[in-house]
Amino acid sequence: MLPFSRVSIIGLGLIGSSIARAIRAEMPTVAITGHDANPDVRAKAIELGFADDVTDTAGAAVIDADLVILAVPLGGMRSVGEAIAADLPADAIVSDVGSSKEAVANALAEVLPGHVVIPGHPVAGTENSGPEAGFASLFKGRWCILTPPADAPEAAVERLRSFWERLGANVEIMDARHHDLVLAVTSHLPHLIAYTIVGTASDMEEVTRSEVIKFSAGGFRDFTRIAASDPTMWRDVFLANKDAVLEMLQRFSEDLTALQRAIRWGDGDTLYELFTRTRAVRRSIIEQGQDDAAPDFGRSHD
Amino acid sequence: MLPFSRVSIIGLGLIGSSIARAIRAEMPTVAITGHDANPDVRAKAIELGFADDVTDTAGAAVIDADLVILAVPLGGMRSVGEAIAADLPADAIVSDVGSSKEAVANALAEVLPGHVVIPGHPVAGTENSGPEAGFASLFKGRWCILTPPADAPEAAVERLRSFWERLGANVEIMDARHHDLVLAVTSHLPHLIAYTIVGTASDMEEVTRSEVIKFSAGGFRDFTRIAASDPTMWRDVFLANKDAVLEMLQRFSEDLTALQRAIRWGDGDTLYELFTRTRAVRRSIIEQGQDDAAPDFGRSHD
Repeated sequence: MLPFSRVSIIGLGLIGSSIARAIRAEMPTVAITGHDANPDVRAKAIELGFADDVTDTAGAAVIDADLVILAVPLGGMRSVGEAIAADLPADAIVSDVGSSKEAVANALAEVLPGHVVIPGHPVAGTENSGPEAGFASLFKGRWCILTPPADAPEAAVERLRSFWERLGANVEIMDARHHDLVLAVTSHLPHLIAYTIVGTASDMEEVTRSEVIKFSAGGFRDFTRIAASDPTMWRDVFLANKDAVLEMLQRFSEDLTALQRAIRWGDGDTLYELFTRTRAVRRSIIEQGQDDAAPDFGRSHD
Repeated sequence: MLPFSRVSIIGLGLIGSSIARAIRAEMPTVAITGHDANPDVRAKAIELGFADDVTDTAGAAVIDADLVILAVPLGGMRSVGEAIAADLPADAIVSDVGSSKEAVANALAEVLPGHVVIPGHPVAGTENSGPEAGFASLFKGRWCILTPPADAPEAAVERLRSFWERLGANVEIMDARHHDLVLAVTSHLPHLIAYTIVGTASDMEEVTRSEVIKFSAGGFRDFTRIAASDPTMWRDVFLANKDAVLEMLQRFSEDLTALQRAIRWGDGDTLYELFTRTRAVRRSIIEQGQDDAAPDFGRSHD
């Protein structure tokens, strides 16, 4: 028994197109309809063939759906909700994949009153974007967080859980506010820091941009990967999850100031103690299957 | 014509053992003698067999050498220099692999007067340490920076260049002070930031350690790799390259404060502009062969 038989995906970039591909791979009888606001992306999606139908309007894409997934940047969620409101079947479940959940939940509740909205967030991705960047196994072994509102029907939550599990994800339920705090630490702050440091390094007078690139294997290149993520998506994340991000940033800055002081005063013990503690965190991530154990991310050295 | 025929390596961890393995692979007739201060590491090195001889003292390891490479943490360079001084052949070239060069150059010039010392730094490594972690191809396609003092004999520099090129590295010559500035940006600051953020994330009250690990695929796990690097080595780097690191940290903090302000005031344009610029840096790194083009570092998603 499949949890849904007609899935509509609005937004056909990395995540939307990966969902379509994963549905094809795991639930081949499900009908997939897609829409993207960008006509070039629609043309590319038709060419790639991961959806049964690609429509010219968001409304046309949801008309028959029993599950609608909004896979657009956070700043576009409200207007997409408005665009599908008139055509949305009464019994369809609406979900999304945004990286910040409280703002999305509020916006969709406002523009889709009376509909079942269960916000979601698959914690998966790569630094690439666009419909060509997606692939069916993106969600395998990754977590997908659902943040159902208090009044969400239990059966709807279970259908959505089953949907994500079939795509290979592990599902976790939490409230939207807690999600936003957790992701501020595990995702938003790391992205902000990576963007900052890549910016800092490319704005030096004494060290040229070409030197920074040449000697990036000393650590810098690891940061450039996440600093190559989609700019629109990430701008929207920081605007949508402002409070939690600012709170985490404050803590980070305090910790950095403490380390700066340790370096200035030659306090090697403080440095050594932290550097030993952080090594253990890496071990736990590998033990729990959230990263490859292969050294250097398994990069080839040949 | 091989540049050296008897190489001595003091310090048999990730880098020292990788050099030994690379010599075996690329210049199999070269005699390799190794020493490590830690008897367990010496025993492991004998078991792994990457050196022809593993000696119980540093002095005994250099007695016949025409090249001596010090591959110990920066804090140990001076005492290793002292330990080999009496046994060091007059015509041997001494080099090292430390991540900060001015301090090493000064220390070795002091304890090895009259000897040819050409400090070096292969910009390569993984988050693992110890003699088991090394491998022969570690230096392939990576840069090795040599920082010869002004009075270094040209022929000696060329022999050392040829040595590293045979191990697969590209060689760049620069002065020690400039090296320390470049590496402060491309390596030391990224490590410091990574250590800090991993520390910050593991010290939260509202978000548990287990949540941080579970949802680390959102970006955090990328930072944990370099925050798993050898604690002793990195403590010494920050103490040895203090001035350059503090200077870079100051710039980074200013840039971070500017972003924090943009988030607080909802200034999406500033965020978008930076996030677009940083994407281009990633592209250059890939174009210049300093990282894999494969998305997500080529991590497997199956």
